[in-house]
Amino acid sequence: MEGTEPVIIGVPKEIKQDEYRVAAAPSGVEALCAAGHEVLIQRGAGAGSGIANEAYQAVGAEIVEEAESVWSRADMVLKVKEPLPEEIPHFREGLLLFSFLHLAANHDLVEALARVRVDAVAYETIRLPDGTFPLLAPMSEIAGRMAIQEGAKYLEVPEGGRGVLLAGVPGVEAGTVVILGGGSVGKNAAKVAVGMGANVILIDIDHRQLSYLDDVFGGRLKTLASSAFNIRETVAQADLLVGGCTSPGPGRRCWFPPNGSTG
Amino acid sequence: MEGTEPVIIGVPKEIKQDEYRVAAAPSGVEALCAAGHEVLIQRGAGAGSGIANEAYQAVGAEIVEEAESVWSRADMVLKVKEPLPEEIPHFREGLLLFSFLHLAANHDLVEALARVRVDAVAYETIRLPDGTFPLLAPMSEIAGRMAIQEGAKYLEVPEGGRGVLLAGVPGVEAGTVVILGGGSVGKNAAKVAVGMGANVILIDIDHRQLSYLDDVFGGRLKTLASSAFNIRETVAQADLLVGGCTSPGPGRRCWFPPNGSTG
Amino acid sequence: MEGTEPVIIGVPKEIKQDEYRVAAAPSGVEALCAAGHEVLIQRGAGAGSGIANEAYQAVGAEIVEEAESVWSRADMVLKVKEPLPEEIPHFREGLLLFSFLHLAANHDLVEALARVRVDAVAYETIRLPDGTFPLLAPMSEIAGRMAIQEGAKYLEVPEGGRGVLLAGVPGVEAGTVVILGGGSVGKNAAKVAVGMGANVILIDIDHRQLSYLDDVFGGRLKTLASSAFNIRETVAQADLLVGGCTSPGPGRRCWFPPNGSTG
Amino acid sequence: MEGTEPVIIGVPKEIKQDEYRVAAAPSGVEALCAAGHEVLIQRGAGAGSGIANEAYQAVGAEIVEEAESVWSRADMVLKVKEPLPEEIPHFREGLLLFSFLHLAANHDLVEALARVRVDAVAYETIRLPDGTFPLLAPMSEIAGRMAIQEGAKYLEVPEGGRGVLLAGVPGVEAGTVVILGGGSVGKNAAKVAVGMGANVILIDIDHRQLSYLDDVFGGRLKTLASSAFNIRETVAQADLLVGGCTSPGPGRRCWFPPNGSTG
Amino acid sequence: MEGTEPVIIGVPKEIKQDEYRVAAAPSGVEALCAAGHEVLIQRGAGAGSGIANEAYQAVGAEIVEEAESVWSRADMVLKVKEPLPEEIPHFREGLLLFSFLHLAANHDLVEALARVRVDAVAYETIRLPDGTFPLLAPMSEIAGRMAIQEGAKYLEVPEGGRGVLLAGVPGVEAGTVVILGGGSVGKNAAKVAVGMGANVILIDIDHRQLSYLDDVFGGRLKTLASSAFNIRETVAQADLLVGGCTSPGPGRRCWFPPNGSTG
Amino acid sequence: MEGTEPVIIGVPKEIKQDEYRVAAAPSGVEALCAAGHEVLIQRGAGAGSGIANEAYQAVGAEIVEEAESVWSRADMVLKVKEPLPEEIPHFREGLLLFSFLHLAANHDLVEALARVRVDAVAYETIRLPDGTFPLLAPMSEIAGRMAIQEGAKYLEVPEGGRGVLLAGVPGVEAGTVVILGGGSVGKNAAKVAVGMGANVILIDIDHRQLSYLDDVFGGRLKTLASSAFNIRETVAQADLLVGGCTSPGPGRRCWFPPNGSTG
Repeated sequence: MEGTEPVIIGVPKEIKQDEYRVAAAPSGVEALCAAGHEVLIQRGAGAGSGIANEAYQAVGAEIVEEAESVWSRADMVLKVKEPLPEEIPHFREGLLLFSFLHLAANHDLVEALARVRVDAVAYETIRLPDGTFPLLAPMSEIAGRMAIQEGAKYLEVPEGGRGVLLAGVPGVEAGTVVILGGGSVGKNAAKVAVGMGANVILIDIDHRQLSYLDDVFGGRLKTLASSAFNIRETVAQADLLVGGCTSPGPGRRCWFPPNGSTG
Repeated sequence: MEGTEPVIIGVPKEIKQDEYRVAAAPSGVEALCAAGHEVLIQRGAGAGSGIANEAYQAVGAEIVEEAESVWSRADMVLKVKEPLPEEIPHFREGLLLFSFLHLAANHDLVEALARVRVDAVAYETIRLPDGTFPLLAPMSEIAGRMAIQEGAKYLEVPEGGRGVLLAGVPGVEAGTVVILGGGSVGKNAAKVAVGMGANVILIDIDHRQLSYLDDVFGGRLKTLASSAFNIRETVAQADLLVGGCTSPGPGRRCWFPPNGSTG
Repeated sequence: MEGTEPVIIGVPKEIKQDEYRVAAAPSGVEALCAAGHEVLIQRGAGAGSGIANEAYQAVGAEIVEEAESVWSRADMVLKVKEPLPEEIPHFREGLLLFSFLHLAANHDLVEALARVRVDAVAYETIRLPDGTFPLLAPMSEIAGRMAIQEGAKYLEVPEGGRGVLLAGVPGVEAGTVVILGGGSVGKNAAKVAVGMGANVILIDIDHRQLSYLDDVFGGRLKTLASSAFNIRETVAQADLLVGGCTSPGPGRRCWFPPNGSTG
Repeated sequence: MEGTEPVIIGVPKEIKQDEYRVAAAPSGVEALCAAGHEVLIQRGAGAGSGIANEAYQAVGAEIVEEAESVWSRADMVLKVKEPLPEEIPHFREGLLLFSFLHLAANHDLVEALARVRVDAVAYETIRLPDGTFPLLAPMSEIAGRMAIQEGAKYLEVPEGGRGVLLAGVPGVEAGTVVILGGGSVGKNAAKVAVGMGANVILIDIDHRQLSYLDDVFGGRLKTLASSAFNIRETVAQADLLVGGCTSPGPGRRCWFPPNGSTG
Repeated sequence: MEGTEPVIIGVPKEIKQDEYRVAAAPSGVEALCAAGHEVLIQRGAGAGSGIANEAYQAVGAEIVEEAESVWSRADMVLKVKEPLPEEIPHFREGLLLFSFLHLAANHDLVEALARVRVDAVAYETIRLPDGTFPLLAPMSEIAGRMAIQEGAKYLEVPEGGRGVLLAGVPGVEAGTVVILGGGSVGKNAAKVAVGMGANVILIDIDHRQLSYLDDVFGGRLKTLASSAFNIRETVAQADLLVGGCTSPGPGRRCWFPPNGSTG
Repeated sequence: MEGTEPVIIGVPKEIKQDEYRVAAAPSGVEALCAAGHEVLIQRGAGAGSGIANEAYQAVGAEIVEEAESVWSRADMVLKVKEPLPEEIPHFREGLLLFSFLHLAANHDLVEALARVRVDAVAYETIRLPDGTFPLLAPMSEIAGRMAIQEGAKYLEVPEGGRGVLLAGVPGVEAGTVVILGGGSVGKNAAKVAVGMGANVILIDIDHRQLSYLDDVFGGRLKTLASSAFNIRETVAQADLLVGGCTSPGPGRRCWFPPNGSTG
């Protein structure tokens, strides 16, 4: 971060429903300010994550009342979610925008970014030379761990589940969790599911990854090679199924037959 | 079970709201029938636990339509929850009733049992010579494991929590769970909480139990001696607090000052 | 051992086929000699266990050529296996005999011991005040651990098995081991089976023992309450079945229906 | 597999003595058929691995009676073991053969393949860009795990061993296993040996691999740098010695002095 | 503690050299004050343990300047170490003294206690119905854990040791720790030694305790039955020897030959 | 080592104070001799590491009395520490010197090496194609493990510490260890600290390394992303702080603000 020109960085409050995250935590803001940059935080931007305005001020940020001011004063805007239609009017040429964008599914946003000539960087596309996605990995880790917590909840009878306690108790069988894919999502789902005491089967197409998981789980995780046969057999006995495969193509973690059906 | 006189055992459907359990599973019914007893299951009694009427029939039970018939034909009735007011009319002299009763809190039920001269056995009072409660222990184990699952849920923002992921992820602190009491409830809560990756502190008054937990958790659980001081200090940093102490008196697991306040 | 009258202790070579053990190791002989007793070892008694005559001499024992001399000179004879018919002529009144005896199955031996008035102590009946069998426990531990090793062998195709590798490998399912009874035999079988990487289910009638096993195996062992239903369901999916129940009666670890059939 | 020309794939029954494997399991056959290929399985090819002819038919294969038909109809033949002399007459120009070949040791086979112009691919030579051998790795994993199981067997007295129980029992020393090489064979041998409770020492020339093994075994495996000195010292105390080094040259895992003697 | 007559409890500063402990921590003082008792703490009594006078005042204690006042005003005096000669003049008839006393080795103290008629309770003699010593156990736990830390230090070359790193590193052998006795001292020494990565052998005379340790250490601890032979063999290879046996007599954990020599 | 010209290799005794290491152990000397080289060891060179002169002779080395002879006869000199001023007169043109050199801090040594034209190779600069430092890694591993052992010692009161037992005991909080950097030093410090039972927090800038540590420590290590904020918060609660970051620049493991202050 050292040695760059000081810029003005703006963090507007997220406006998508049920989005409680904020694009920068005080620790990051402190690092930016320490490097000589100016950081603008919209009032209340951190509230959904339990971060007070004062916490940002304490590390050098300026609290700004209106989203409009954040967008117009900043050289670079940091967001979590892709801009919603009501945020597009804030676009201006030369604005540097960092955000999850998922453009494939959002033609209007592509058109707006191109028309106004915003320099937009999608978090989900940033890739290191070793092929890993540094900004997606922590999201996948959270998703994998939450998946088991959410799944455990929906197995409870009051939530409409079949009354299976994933953890079991001595003398009563634990629930069975089947995880498709052993990447960041799958590995982290396996950690929580195994830790809770469930019976966990993880399926992946990459033998080296299965060997690595066998190494670090020390026999507590069952691994299976991905095949339509294995997927069919294990899914049939699952109380909870976790999907941790990316879409078909290079890097995918599970095998699906060409006709798209696993049986 | 062998060598006793054959009796008729009845299992009515539970009628308390949100009670999904049933007093006998097919495996137990099979054992009773194999020992020569007759077992009556009210139609649908197992539905809340995902057990079909056919599963009971397959091991020798008779399916009975009405609660009234179960109660009147049976020598012995097995229930989960204490009888509700609408079940009291089924009482008759000499009936043997096995159920959780919790009589201390239910004066009307005590009065009815005594008046009609039902021979009632409360599950929660059955105690082995070594001082343990064999019918409470599995309930406590379930309660302890569920406590963490439920707590994890209520720490999510959409449920009104502060957005703490108990499990943490690499680079982000896990949640802190404080457990008061290291008996069946506390130990099982600790198993799930530690397994999920939380930072877990367990407090108990009995040094031998803390030593045992230290042995079996192999350094993954922090134990603290129970004192008002320790409770105050740790509760203040808890994201989730689990109560696993029985009421004050012999066998209690935590220390409370005589004035009932822990600070 | 101190403070007792010095006696002469004899250890004859075992003569039962495939019995490779010896009733006293040099460490025990050393303790006996240090306490002032005289120890006679038949030449070659330790050979099956890889213990040379010299090892016994080094700690103070006398090597005796013939079984006859060991039996006739000793006040007390230590054996592993019950006396075979060809050893009965060595009996004499007042001889103190320590050995596994298993008298229930051996009417001739009972008759001989009673007729000659040998003072015989059966290892398998020695019991501590806490109800445990101190001389059986190590045998059970060995039996439990060997059971898995032997079972793994007989699952190999050249031994007539179905070609299941108990340990599995990454991507291929491990074998399933079902263990009936969670006492010394079952617990030790579970240790080796779990350690090898098998999928292990242990069934016991005593909930406290299941809870203890759940504590010390830390989620790596599946425990089930003993019932005809659970035994039937799990045995049907077992690649290897280990019996660790004592005969029916007090202390038994599994439940069997009165007609002796589990289904 | 998608997008390739449909071909006819044949799987003859293995004819080498004590070879119980089959070159394709139903899950693989299903994937091939789903991709549009035709698969011929010789009747009984799966019997040694417990796979019925019907299991192949269920996923789309055709059962063929004679080996001759499999070889002559198939564009591509999948085998486990290198062709034996009696299979060489099945060769024809342009046939694509996938098999373990181990040509270095088999001059006649090399000559036959070259003469008839078979396009043969040896499993053991297929290498990924990262230098690993994807078709050898699972074989090595099985070999490593089996090595301990076999070794444990041959340490039993009836098999001619010295009566050492690898697992030990409380109060009695476990056996010592020395493993030369920490690659797929050695790591998997170590997993089973450590899991059984043996005292395990693994020797490798690559410090990074030893560090990795130290990480994943969490202190349960002793690692030693490979040197003639260390090999000599540890082999002398081994009850069981496992060789997991490939032949000298790049990639070897242990150090041997130039004169071929380790002392 | 409730329901007893209020008394005055005094805690003088320890005066023995290198004794940094204090007989009551603030959490205990709080409990005593909450129960209605009066607690006098000599100024500076907690300094060696990092406890300020203010911490005691905050929970209700009175800070007293002189030892003399503490002893003369208190009904009951709590100490860590046995009274030294200069404390004996504080004795008075009827004083209740709680302290470690170790009277067997201190004839003068016995004489003084008896002459003045102090009611002295030695911590080391308090025993629960199950035979355990509740006030000794925590001391033994600390002693066991410190033993390894101290031993590791004295194995360093600058401290005069032989330069053995107990923990080893990948590729280099760890140190060997031999522990005599598997009670509180030995078990806790084993926890730290195993945790650091040492090669640990624990010897005890009680097979049940060895089985329990085998259960909870999950194969990471080697256990040996106590015999002169085993002690001799293992001590000879120890880098660090930890003594965790109480003196000969009932409850002792290791076997010593009657002539007091282990070889 | 094979195929090179035989050379004469010299190992002088280290002369720096408190340096107990020696540049070659007998196992390495044996390998060199076996490859045809001649090895000269100065008498007593191994004494500080407990290696007798005879151990070197047994594998083929010649023991030489004077440092002068070692330096003058050898083609290549192996040392641990950089040459001290009194060793510089031994330099001669063409001498090949292997040693830690740390030249950045030692202008006189640079000047001497350059002037005399010694061919010096600094261990600390040897780097594999994958970017790791093979000769530094074992040093870092030792340093990391020793760091905890030393830190534990200096937390004892007699050493001037605050009387914190890193390991804790049941009922008493363990000490908190904060480790900056998760490379070889930090990972190995974490292994010993976690093993002893401490509460351990490790901070690193590289998310992939934190994920790997989370995998192999199985939830026993808390990991935090490096930021001035996180460092400040955790260091404030540390009983022991371990520095495992290399100097700022590529490869560094922790983030420091540009002005060099962490808060």
